[in-house]
Amino acid sequence: MSSEPAPAPAPASASTEEIEADLSTATISKKQLKKDARKAEKAGKASQRQQQQQPQAEEADPFAANYGDVPVEEIQSKVISGRTWTDIGDLDEAAAGRSVLIRGSAQTLRPVSKKMAFVVLRQSMSTVQCVLVASADAGVSTQMVRFATSLSKESIVDVEGVVTLPKEPLKATTQQVEIQVRKVYCINRAIPTLPINLEDAARSEAEFEKAEQNGEKLVRVLQDTRLNYRAIDLRTPANQAIFRIQCHVENKFREFLFSENFIGIHSPKLIGGSSEGGASVFKLEYNGQPACLAQSPQLYKQMSICGGFGRVFEVGPVFRAEKSNTHRHLCEFIGLDAEMEIKEHYFEVCDIIDGLFVAIFKHLNENCQKELETINRQYPFEPLKYLEKTLKLTYEEGIKMLKEAGTEIEPMGDLNTEAEKKLGRLVKEKYGTEFFILYQYPLAVRPFYTMPCYDDPAYSNSFDVFIRGEY
Amino acid sequence: MSSEPAPAPAPASASTEEIEADLSTATISKKQLKKDARKAEKAGKASQRQQQQQPQAEEADPFAANYGDVPVEEIQSKVISGRTWTDIGDLDEAAAGRSVLIRGSAQTLRPVSKKMAFVVLRQSMSTVQCVLVASADAGVSTQMVRFATSLSKESIVDVEGVVTLPKEPLKATTQQVEIQVRKVYCINRAIPTLPINLEDAARSEAEFEKAEQNGEKLVRVLQDTRLNYRAIDLRTPANQAIFRIQCHVENKFREFLFSENFIGIHSPKLIGGSSEGGASVFKLEYNGQPACLAQSPQLYKQMSICGGFGRVFEVGPVFRAEKSNTHRHLCEFIGLDAEMEIKEHYFEVCDIIDGLFVAIFKHLNENCQKELETINRQYPFEPLKYLEKTLKLTYEEGIKMLKEAGTEIEPMGDLNTEAEKKLGRLVKEKYGTEFFILYQYPLAVRPFYTMPCYDDPAYSNSFDVFIRGEY
Repeated sequence: MSSEPAPAPAPASASTEEIEADLSTATISKKQLKKDARKAEKAGKASQRQQQQQPQAEEADPFAANYGDVPVEEIQSKVISGRTWTDIGDLDEAAAGRSVLIRGSAQTLRPVSKKMAFVVLRQSMSTVQCVLVASADAGVSTQMVRFATSLSKESIVDVEGVVTLPKEPLKATTQQVEIQVRKVYCINRAIPTLPINLEDAARSEAEFEKAEQNGEKLVRVLQDTRLNYRAIDLRTPANQAIFRIQCHVENKFREFLFSENFIGIHSPKLIGGSSEGGASVFKLEYNGQPACLAQSPQLYKQMSICGGFGRVFEVGPVFRAEKSNTHRHLCEFIGLDAEMEIKEHYFEVCDIIDGLFVAIFKHLNENCQKELETINRQYPFEPLKYLEKTLKLTYEEGIKMLKEAGTEIEPMGDLNTEAEKKLGRLVKEKYGTEFFILYQYPLAVRPFYTMPCYDDPAYSNSFDVFIRGEY
Repeated sequence: MSSEPAPAPAPASASTEEIEADLSTATISKKQLKKDARKAEKAGKASQRQQQQQPQAEEADPFAANYGDVPVEEIQSKVISGRTWTDIGDLDEAAAGRSVLIRGSAQTLRPVSKKMAFVVLRQSMSTVQCVLVASADAGVSTQMVRFATSLSKESIVDVEGVVTLPKEPLKATTQQVEIQVRKVYCINRAIPTLPINLEDAARSEAEFEKAEQNGEKLVRVLQDTRLNYRAIDLRTPANQAIFRIQCHVENKFREFLFSENFIGIHSPKLIGGSSEGGASVFKLEYNGQPACLAQSPQLYKQMSICGGFGRVFEVGPVFRAEKSNTHRHLCEFIGLDAEMEIKEHYFEVCDIIDGLFVAIFKHLNENCQKELETINRQYPFEPLKYLEKTLKLTYEEGIKMLKEAGTEIEPMGDLNTEAEKKLGRLVKEKYGTEFFILYQYPLAVRPFYTMPCYDDPAYSNSFDVFIRGEY
């Protein structure tokens, strides 16, 4: 348990970005760290001076206390005020008329006039429009309006205000309410120009195409930039949603299997030999002895079954030193693995895996609508088609479907990616599902520990689960 | 998702043990595998011959169908009979009079006479006594009694029988019912002599001492043997319980934090530089470039916070190439990590961590009584003392307590293990708790990213959680 608290949120500060950039390329040199620290210190002092000067410049403003940059001493674990911050995602029509305090990243800063401005604040997948209108009654001065619009994008901002309902539906924000701003404080200013503009990073292909048709040229954030500034790219609504869905998948995976008497284990990743006999293994030195990174928890799961656990699952990293550069090959990925003892037939496993997938699909549909819609906006997709009772086909039946559709195929060989995708399309056309199980593979194409079929040793007790033509 | 089903359970078969032994030493050579396969095939054929001969030898037995070795073809995913196996752990007094089918490992085989025998079957942490009494009414012959007692320990056995209540409480089994055996089949015979006798492996120190006082010498299973035959050692009730509790801790950790709006993440383990600047890092080659195994998810967690996730947790392996050989140093362990954005004070984190631990303690007490008792039988312990409202002490208060108790200590230095343990004892005496939080450590003893206290930069916004004198 690491118990150091996070520093006060400073996601867009210069020093944070530099640490990130260093991480993504090579080791962090101590020299560089010291340099960064000195730079950060200087920046801090400069900003303090600026704040100390500010009150003089704004002396004429009777509402000066209602806005400003919060000095670092104030946000540094000094007071426990008892105030509560409302989550932006919780701001709905029921909150109308209530006074709220919110904290978010300044996504859009839109001055309308000297006396009016809009600031859109974002918190994870949710955005809300904050309205500033200079008015003595509200305690809002023109200086305050100027302060708000002078903030840099992605600065962390506290807003106090009253929730109101807009006259027309808001297109630019997720929340269908507005905040009439009474106070606005900047907790942490982002540098004026960030390497990624979030609006650029969050656009769908359709938006690019539409702009192009109108003769506009929108900025595309390329993969390199996204990865070099991952902490900023992660802030796009789609990325926020993808990570949440990943967590939901893992939660449901664990919950379903635990309810079926599986036990979660963690098998070693530093091991004395390769897991599956392949050449694609990362090698390292372990106290002067050769060691490998586990390519699979397979044998450890089986040892757990021999060890009397009956049913086990594991969620953890898998390492494969494969040079293949396809979306199905990753040097490091998180495996969701399960293994169980069977009483008399391997269909017992098949049924568990089947039930597990269907439970996950249902869980996501029931609990992650907001996340799915958010992803859909940037990366449009159709909802997955699956049956309540999952389709199971033998390998032979699959081969037959492919042959009838004109694919030349070796009946006892492995399916290549193209054949698998085609089978996926054929199954979808014929059975109306994108999720099915193919079983009884030829023994020759499965790993050494696979059991042959009792009545035909050319086939094996094995299966793969296909989603959208890929297993 | 790996979808190969487990082979029919064969935990104690010769070939399984050999695979395990290979794993624990070096890579599995293909030659050895082929040799093993040939050996296993031979053994299989021999046992088939034996079974084919058996019916002739036992021809005189009208109840021959009620017992025997199940040939491998029968257990190899041939039929789906629809039979259900009752879990041994579910056999209680409510089951009395019912006919049940159970599958377990033969833990004890105790012939009483030609006509009577006891067989104790074990499934995970649970054991039940099966009683064989030769009787024509029950369909049990003396040959069947002989067959049952001729089984090797740890063989996998199916028993059909009627649940009865014993006259006196049973000391040797966890379940307080007996099974009057009607049918007994061996699914998989263990080799006659296993490297570990489970009864030896499961004994407590108290049992060894008692035996020694009586002039008996019991066999001790040493650590090397346990690790070389891990799949057998895992079968001890205490190990079964420990792994289950580990899983419960992880479940509750995730559930609690998820309910507090944390998102589970998985940060990279193969990274371009060391995580915490230390020398104790495993180095390897990644496509011709130097890489390291992550020593901590710390910076990645912080990047997630900068990335707008607000609150994240991670459960995953942590790698540290430390040579220190203490129970607090491991080259590979599973870290339970959490990181969160704070609104105004690091006590917000402190409160979450505090609530998390107390929730886990309560969860284990409420859901794992059987597991805790099982561990207690082999490794006696006192229940953990903790308060509903967790004690928080400043580092300064901790130092003061130690000084008053006569410990010489550097007030701004780090606590060594001995001092920490002593503080744990002092706190337990004074406050009646073994769980407390020590906060506001000297800045100098914390990592570079720790925030100094706003009013005294010699101290820092940091804390550690102590359980039984160790953090």
